[in-house]
Amino acid sequence: MNIHPPQGFLFSSATAALALAPEGASAAAMFTRNQMVAAPVVVGRENLRSSKGRIHALIVNSGNANCATGAVGLKAAKTVCKTVAAAIHSKPAQVFPSSTGIIGVPLPVGKITSALPNLVATAQAGNDALHSFANTILTTDTRSKLASAELVYKGIKVSLVGVAKGAGMIHPNMATMLVYLFTDISAKPPELQQALKNAVDQSFNNISIDGDTSTNDTVLILASGKSNVQIKSVRKEFELALLQVCRSLARQIVADGEGVKHVVRLKIEQARNIKEARQIAGAIATSALVKTAWAGADPNWGRIVAAIGRSGVTVNLEKISVHLGDQQLFSKGGACKFDHQRAHEYMSQPEYEIRITLGMGKSNLEFLSCDLTAEYVHINADYST
Amino acid sequence: MNIHPPQGFLFSSATAALALAPEGASAAAMFTRNQMVAAPVVVGRENLRSSKGRIHALIVNSGNANCATGAVGLKAAKTVCKTVAAAIHSKPAQVFPSSTGIIGVPLPVGKITSALPNLVATAQAGNDALHSFANTILTTDTRSKLASAELVYKGIKVSLVGVAKGAGMIHPNMATMLVYLFTDISAKPPELQQALKNAVDQSFNNISIDGDTSTNDTVLILASGKSNVQIKSVRKEFELALLQVCRSLARQIVADGEGVKHVVRLKIEQARNIKEARQIAGAIATSALVKTAWAGADPNWGRIVAAIGRSGVTVNLEKISVHLGDQQLFSKGGACKFDHQRAHEYMSQPEYEIRITLGMGKSNLEFLSCDLTAEYVHINADYST
Repeated sequence: MNIHPPQGFLFSSATAALALAPEGASAAAMFTRNQMVAAPVVVGRENLRSSKGRIHALIVNSGNANCATGAVGLKAAKTVCKTVAAAIHSKPAQVFPSSTGIIGVPLPVGKITSALPNLVATAQAGNDALHSFANTILTTDTRSKLASAELVYKGIKVSLVGVAKGAGMIHPNMATMLVYLFTDISAKPPELQQALKNAVDQSFNNISIDGDTSTNDTVLILASGKSNVQIKSVRKEFELALLQVCRSLARQIVADGEGVKHVVRLKIEQARNIKEARQIAGAIATSALVKTAWAGADPNWGRIVAAIGRSGVTVNLEKISVHLGDQQLFSKGGACKFDHQRAHEYMSQPEYEIRITLGMGKSNLEFLSCDLTAEYVHINADYST
Repeated sequence: MNIHPPQGFLFSSATAALALAPEGASAAAMFTRNQMVAAPVVVGRENLRSSKGRIHALIVNSGNANCATGAVGLKAAKTVCKTVAAAIHSKPAQVFPSSTGIIGVPLPVGKITSALPNLVATAQAGNDALHSFANTILTTDTRSKLASAELVYKGIKVSLVGVAKGAGMIHPNMATMLVYLFTDISAKPPELQQALKNAVDQSFNNISIDGDTSTNDTVLILASGKSNVQIKSVRKEFELALLQVCRSLARQIVADGEGVKHVVRLKIEQARNIKEARQIAGAIATSALVKTAWAGADPNWGRIVAAIGRSGVTVNLEKISVHLGDQQLFSKGGACKFDHQRAHEYMSQPEYEIRITLGMGKSNLEFLSCDLTAEYVHINADYST
């Protein structure tokens, strides 16, 4: 993959994954909306506030979520930050912690802190270190997830890379999903926050694997400023690049969802507004009946229309049309004639499109979902507490 | 099973299932809240209205839902009612139709109407005919579902029996669930409707198999009046009997859910109100992560608490307590020490209890759910359009 690491960052990984911004970076983040939040989310939010969005290090461990661990968990996350800060001569509030893994088990703090001197000493710029970082944050993921974009302003290159960890639980409002974006653009934290919000709304909030929402979800962006290009000079281009990177990572996350055999692009068209479009997409994308039909490559439009009918959005069934690729399955309240064999073959592809036209308004949404397979059940019935 | 068929009804079944009330019966019904409703639901509702709740026959076919079949489907349901009415010398509006099965395929009207003369001719009172009726309405169910209750008023016996069909898609507000209740009590349709609503709210609306809601769900009660006991003389006793029968059928439906290996009684205690209790129960009972943990008999309370956290109900995690049988798993925001092996053994039983105490109010709810197994996926990935 053609990845262009931005200037101003070093990466290192072993027991944990460490990203350093030796001269600091502006930071912005978005977190899970689950009321049960893990200790690192609490501490990360706090540190962003007290450092005024200025971060020197990101430390990630996978395997343990440090969630529902009470006061001990909070202390553990803070100890990790303090140890990183001491090793790189920054303040604990300039360290951003992330954890992913099992809930309710104490974080093995010692294991992480004892690895830190070596992690700091071996931190490097460049592709290898970045790829190694991307590998270290994985849990049940089967492959690492990276994406990058570049833009040029007056002959100066600005780079943006993103790495992500996904697998199960991915659902709008983010779920056991960790995403880290690194760029060398120059931006103030509020400028980054606005750009990040727009990109997340159009990428990670439009995907679903199993409908669950996690306690640890985090999307963090760090901007080192080392390109010396100001965000305001290239706002549109940068926002587009950020959206592209986020969409690529979102797609990689769904495609690598637990047991996923098929990625389904749900196009919801002519909704009254985006909120209703997302509500309908969510009802379809979380229906066990729809998702098992997808696992069997079965063009069962009845289950899709039934999911729309119970989505809570008032619809007019007579106006709804369902397309599978170029074949129309449903219109005017009833079945269309279509070639079942061709539909089955179309649905046997690793990725395909289902388009639902509602005839109610002008809002369109693309939402990524996937099938529910027996393998998903095996993975999650065996992943023990 | 000790079933006591009420007086005033005859049953018959072959291609379809027929129940006759030769002298008519008062009727009340509740239907799916899905916006996509099948033709028999439209016609059944219409017939109840125009007959003023006076029904002489119930005709049920399984295998075809007669849903999303447009004007042709409505005509088909009406033709079936007309044919039954002609055969028993009643009015079409006095016939109540039900269908269950695949969506979007035209109803094989001829097959049903040509079977009718024989169905009418062979209709019988008694247990054998009732059991045969209960068998004929099944789809992917593995066993028939019956329940009954009796009460005595001044030496006169009043009987109530219920038969049901369930399997997948069962969720509050009813889903591919057909329930027929027959009683010889004497009641006016509005009295029956009130009693039915109370019982359904406390039984079928507190169960979930896969979270989907169907297009054909129907709970119908018919009261022949042949006992000559007025409902107002035994209101409390009758309501209790009706609730017992409905709860028994609800439990049978969950236990026979597609691929179900474990029935889980979710006790939600100390909620602010029943609505919030049901919302929390629903979030847990539809979480793929929770349900796969149940499939593996894994006491993963983290997934349960995470589901509560995203339920939309504002909770105080510090006040939440989770019990698995007699062992406490979670309290004061963190894990409790418990015997994992014993927890695993407890969860290996076919039915067990998880109790969640919220510490917010005085409302309690018992909600029946089940695990999500690889077998569920196989059944639904292979059940073709």
